[in-house]
Amino acid sequence: MSSQQYVEAAHHSFINFQSSIVGALEALDGRAQFQGETIETPGGGISQPRVLSGGQHIEKAAVQFTHSVGAALPPAASERNPHLAGRPFEAVAISLIVHPRNPHVPTTHMNLRFFAVDAEPAHWHFGGGFDLTPYYLYPDDAIEWHRVAERATGEHYAEMKKACDEYFVLTHRNEARGIGGLFFDDFGYPDFDDAFALVERIGSAFMEAYGPIVERRRDMPYSEAQEQWMLIRRGRYAEFNLAIDRGTRYGIQSGRRIESVLASLPPRAEWHYDHHPEPGSAEADLIAALEKPREWLG
Amino acid sequence: MSSQQYVEAAHHSFINFQSSIVGALEALDGRAQFQGETIETPGGGISQPRVLSGGQHIEKAAVQFTHSVGAALPPAASERNPHLAGRPFEAVAISLIVHPRNPHVPTTHMNLRFFAVDAEPAHWHFGGGFDLTPYYLYPDDAIEWHRVAERATGEHYAEMKKACDEYFVLTHRNEARGIGGLFFDDFGYPDFDDAFALVERIGSAFMEAYGPIVERRRDMPYSEAQEQWMLIRRGRYAEFNLAIDRGTRYGIQSGRRIESVLASLPPRAEWHYDHHPEPGSAEADLIAALEKPREWLG
Repeated sequence: MSSQQYVEAAHHSFINFQSSIVGALEALDGRAQFQGETIETPGGGISQPRVLSGGQHIEKAAVQFTHSVGAALPPAASERNPHLAGRPFEAVAISLIVHPRNPHVPTTHMNLRFFAVDAEPAHWHFGGGFDLTPYYLYPDDAIEWHRVAERATGEHYAEMKKACDEYFVLTHRNEARGIGGLFFDDFGYPDFDDAFALVERIGSAFMEAYGPIVERRRDMPYSEAQEQWMLIRRGRYAEFNLAIDRGTRYGIQSGRRIESVLASLPPRAEWHYDHHPEPGSAEADLIAALEKPREWLG
Repeated sequence: MSSQQYVEAAHHSFINFQSSIVGALEALDGRAQFQGETIETPGGGISQPRVLSGGQHIEKAAVQFTHSVGAALPPAASERNPHLAGRPFEAVAISLIVHPRNPHVPTTHMNLRFFAVDAEPAHWHFGGGFDLTPYYLYPDDAIEWHRVAERATGEHYAEMKKACDEYFVLTHRNEARGIGGLFFDDFGYPDFDDAFALVERIGSAFMEAYGPIVERRRDMPYSEAQEQWMLIRRGRYAEFNLAIDRGTRYGIQSGRRIESVLASLPPRAEWHYDHHPEPGSAEADLIAALEKPREWLG
């Protein structure tokens, strides 16, 4: 296959994931529907955001598909491969976020992307992953989440789990954003077919991992104090995305469509000065799990 | 005077401003009080945060005094003055933010700082300013705000007003954070006494400019929709502070006490996907004023 055929395969796959995940999230919510549009971007690309707001179980979700086409790769993006500078490139990605309404249901994020440069030799790789950000720690949920991730990735699980623990860290607070999952970049081993198959297994695993957790937790009663804790934690989520996340920072600086770049931000968030949960509380249990990544599969 | 005497003069002045502004804000709120502590920092410095939460008119305010003492100036901070590298330095600052409850009352921010390096020749300068972030545009408020700023700064007003308009910009949204005020850095002209006098006039002008606006607006009735608009605009404030503001970014990266660094974040904020005010509405009027800085004093 040529790199153009790789791009088409990734496009087809990721746009199908968008459609199936949108359907699955609507079914989980049971009431709200995604709205969206298809925006043509320069050079023949498309941006296809799908956003759900104000659901009964999902307060906000964004599932975005983008296919960008670039005429010339900037030198800064090709430092390690100077032969790629100035060459045409394409990037295909699905990126999603779910901010639930019930604090017992975790927030989650998934991203799959394929990047290819039309050069000789050709250059391409996959990146992405998925991760879970609970407000209350249910070890059974965390174990199941990681078990599904491990089934999808096999021998790659340990490395991708470690990369996830290392990436999603609020360094200024010495705490992780969540309880991890998978993270990978520059991935293309051993060849396109095998790498693509792995990425598709990860894409398929996402709802298999997240769906049962939502079903189990979405009807649990919760107090105003628990909701407020969720809002404080969502403030931390905004801190990570705005101040630390490479993708968001790149999007802000590069002039990409800002509503797509910032669709991951929480619908509501709070900051309480010098807030610390009571020792021994469920909230403190969560913080303990965020301060030191755990091996959930023992 | 030696640079140590300059540091002492700035310390004395800024800590007095903290005390008088805390008192003035408590009086404006009429109910809530600031809480605080004094934290000793390495080398003999102090950090003295004062925070008010949940007032009747002020939802959150932070007025912080810090005096940092450093044993050796890092090379990155002395690129333009290599003779300063490795020398002892001190920084004295007051930094404040007010997030009001009523959307007709603007958010405001002020910062005054003095920085001195013990070297031969000595190096010192002032920086700071104040700026106003309304949720609804009252031209009379904006004019009065800028008139007080001009009275305090005289011949420096035009330059400091322009610097403020240029600094507080959400570049990714092509809009200013607010309707401006004063911003200055590396300021020490023509000598310490004159520069210090100007900085003190700015410090004194702050409540003179902000107080009357709060008194005029704090009892205006407002709707839930207007409050929600304030929360959406506060999301933009968080975007600026977390993703763009140099002081916050430096604080996050440098390992300073994070609750002080992030005390400026709004108590509550919202992000609504692709939100645009109705054409012709009061909300759209505000956006128009943020898209292009105005000369309020004509």
